[in-house]
Amino acid sequence: SSDSAPIRATLFPGDGIGPEIAESVKQVFKGAEVPIEWEEHYVGDQIDPRTQSFLTWESLESVRRNGVGLKGPMATPIGKGHRSLNLTLRKELNLYANVRPCYSLSGYKTRYDDVNLITIRENTEGEYSGLEHQVVRGVVESLKIITRQASLRVAEYAFHYAKTHGRERVSAIHKANIMQKTDGLFLKCCREVAEKYPEITYKEVVIDNCCMMLVKNPALFDVLVMPNLYGDIISDLCAGLIGGLGLTPSCNIGEGGIALAEAVHGSAPDIAGKNLANPTALLLSAVTMLRHLNLHDKADRIQNAILNTIAEGKYRTADLGGSSTTTDFTRAICDHL
Amino acid sequence: SSDSAPIRATLFPGDGIGPEIAESVKQVFKGAEVPIEWEEHYVGDQIDPRTQSFLTWESLESVRRNGVGLKGPMATPIGKGHRSLNLTLRKELNLYANVRPCYSLSGYKTRYDDVNLITIRENTEGEYSGLEHQVVRGVVESLKIITRQASLRVAEYAFHYAKTHGRERVSAIHKANIMQKTDGLFLKCCREVAEKYPEITYKEVVIDNCCMMLVKNPALFDVLVMPNLYGDIISDLCAGLIGGLGLTPSCNIGEGGIALAEAVHGSAPDIAGKNLANPTALLLSAVTMLRHLNLHDKADRIQNAILNTIAEGKYRTADLGGSSTTTDFTRAICDHL
Ligand SMILES: CC(C)[C@H](C(=O)O)[C@@H](O)C(=O)O
Ligand SMILES: CC(C)[C@H](C(=O)O)[C@@H](O)C(=O)O
Repeated sequence: SSDSAPIRATLFPGDGIGPEIAESVKQVFKGAEVPIEWEEHYVGDQIDPRTQSFLTWESLESVRRNGVGLKGPMATPIGKGHRSLNLTLRKELNLYANVRPCYSLSGYKTRYDDVNLITIRENTEGEYSGLEHQVVRGVVESLKIITRQASLRVAEYAFHYAKTHGRERVSAIHKANIMQKTDGLFLKCCREVAEKYPEITYKEVVIDNCCMMLVKNPALFDVLVMPNLYGDIISDLCAGLIGGLGLTPSCNIGEGGIALAEAVHGSAPDIAGKNLANPTALLLSAVTMLRHLNLHDKADRIQNAILNTIAEGKYRTADLGGSSTTTDFTRAICDHL
Repeated sequence: SSDSAPIRATLFPGDGIGPEIAESVKQVFKGAEVPIEWEEHYVGDQIDPRTQSFLTWESLESVRRNGVGLKGPMATPIGKGHRSLNLTLRKELNLYANVRPCYSLSGYKTRYDDVNLITIRENTEGEYSGLEHQVVRGVVESLKIITRQASLRVAEYAFHYAKTHGRERVSAIHKANIMQKTDGLFLKCCREVAEKYPEITYKEVVIDNCCMMLVKNPALFDVLVMPNLYGDIISDLCAGLIGGLGLTPSCNIGEGGIALAEAVHGSAPDIAGKNLANPTALLLSAVTMLRHLNLHDKADRIQNAILNTIAEGKYRTADLGGSSTTTDFTRAICDHL
């Protein structure tokens, strides 16, 4: 396969520890002979008028052209008058679904050893509409928007994902007992899609009850699909069950088949440049990108090397209680390939 | 103290298992010689035009007159044209703060043994405004309302609670990075109140991160205060950490010092009338009512008897893996008084 033309993918190393963990991905991909050529793009240091943000027009064009990308943590510069970089990416690239697989890692013990969840979050609307205003002094309101189009789209993605990934159950998470119209519409769309997938067991779970059940017994769930804010909350809760955002991959799916994988943890400026960062979340995100490209052999090979290195426990970065450097941990993964 | 005039308190036994667990409270209160006389009220079987719900006007008047009450689970009858009983109570009695203490019970093992949290939820506005409409076909919106008045009121309650209950830290939970105006106003109010309590450490935590930290290490938190929906979610998450809603008390605080304690679990129609229900949540809720009345000796005595009975493990209802009846468990608590 190294003879055929390489696949081009956009790489945003990002800020803080971003460049170090991106380097780790490049090393591991080289070790596994993944036929990918990276197009690297950095966040600009001034607002690009065409994106109204620090993201350059060229970088967005690169993702659109390549259809796949990988993104490290981006710290939105402080100050007013420009949008969060993460939100800008979601909006500009119409990244409508955020997919986060979350499974217990043998070798990194938490209170849970039976987590195997996929959260699928609607990523474009809901509480993230940005529509807010002051009604009178001391009274403000935010609008939560739910549309049939976006709800059907994410529901369709979730059921299709379940079917093509050997998953048996999809739970729609909601608060339709309170928000009957908005969350009610979301549920209605999920039900419509569920009917097309009779082989998948479909359930509806109220978000408060869902959180209680997740911490009691995460094995009750399989694939979870939900509106934007609930997805934000529940995907982080699930990450907490297995150790945190440093260990969980994430992939954003856009219209036209775009996939932008990303590490959702922060840029950790305190340890940036010190060769201390844990590249696991970015590496596992890169694996989801490979799966999106149907490079399952490469994906399996890299994923197993990562999981086996962590399970072996000889090389561990400080966040997991070890003292390995990023480069040593990366080398250990390459040795496990 | 049994010589002085008894304190009158309203009791809503509620539906399903409600009457059985309310009977348990009456027994334990009798055993502990609590100087309370119950005024019992049931949910009506038709809509009372003065409350626009199945709650009778007399029952609401009773709570207003007595200032304290205890409520079992109420199942809102299915059908349209009337409001949820729980929401009606919150609205009619202006129950602005919902307080849920949540602590690990020795004797009932979960994955966590170090939980000691108080969630304080704004109970009147936010995502529960009931304001929703269809903008065009396939596009619906819900309004989240945050007011300065309600935010200051619940923040004041939280800090006062922390101070008077020997708590050291208050965390305000929010998503102001996305809902800058609504959650931003909530935070601004919390900050204003925090300044009046320099002895309390004040922190602000984004809700997604809060949920991740709660499942990783609940000891990071002490008192948490938040808008309505976040409180709904996080209080259930916290309950899950220690075993579920069957074990956690709840108390609603209203303007003018009203306190309506309630078991927040469901009415469990499947086991109703079978002497199988666990009365712990209602009993511990009744204890919070006693504390509100400053009957701390009685409250301590009853709380210890409940916790010791559970810790001893000889009498346990089915939900906790035992085979005791409600009456046997209740008798055991009385024996521990
Ligand atoms: C940083 C923040 C705006 C973002 C969100 O709320 O979506 C983050 O929490 C995430 O989950 O990617
Ligand atoms: C039953 C429901 C309306 C209610 C709520 O959402 O507040 C419940 O979850 C609660 O926490 O009391």
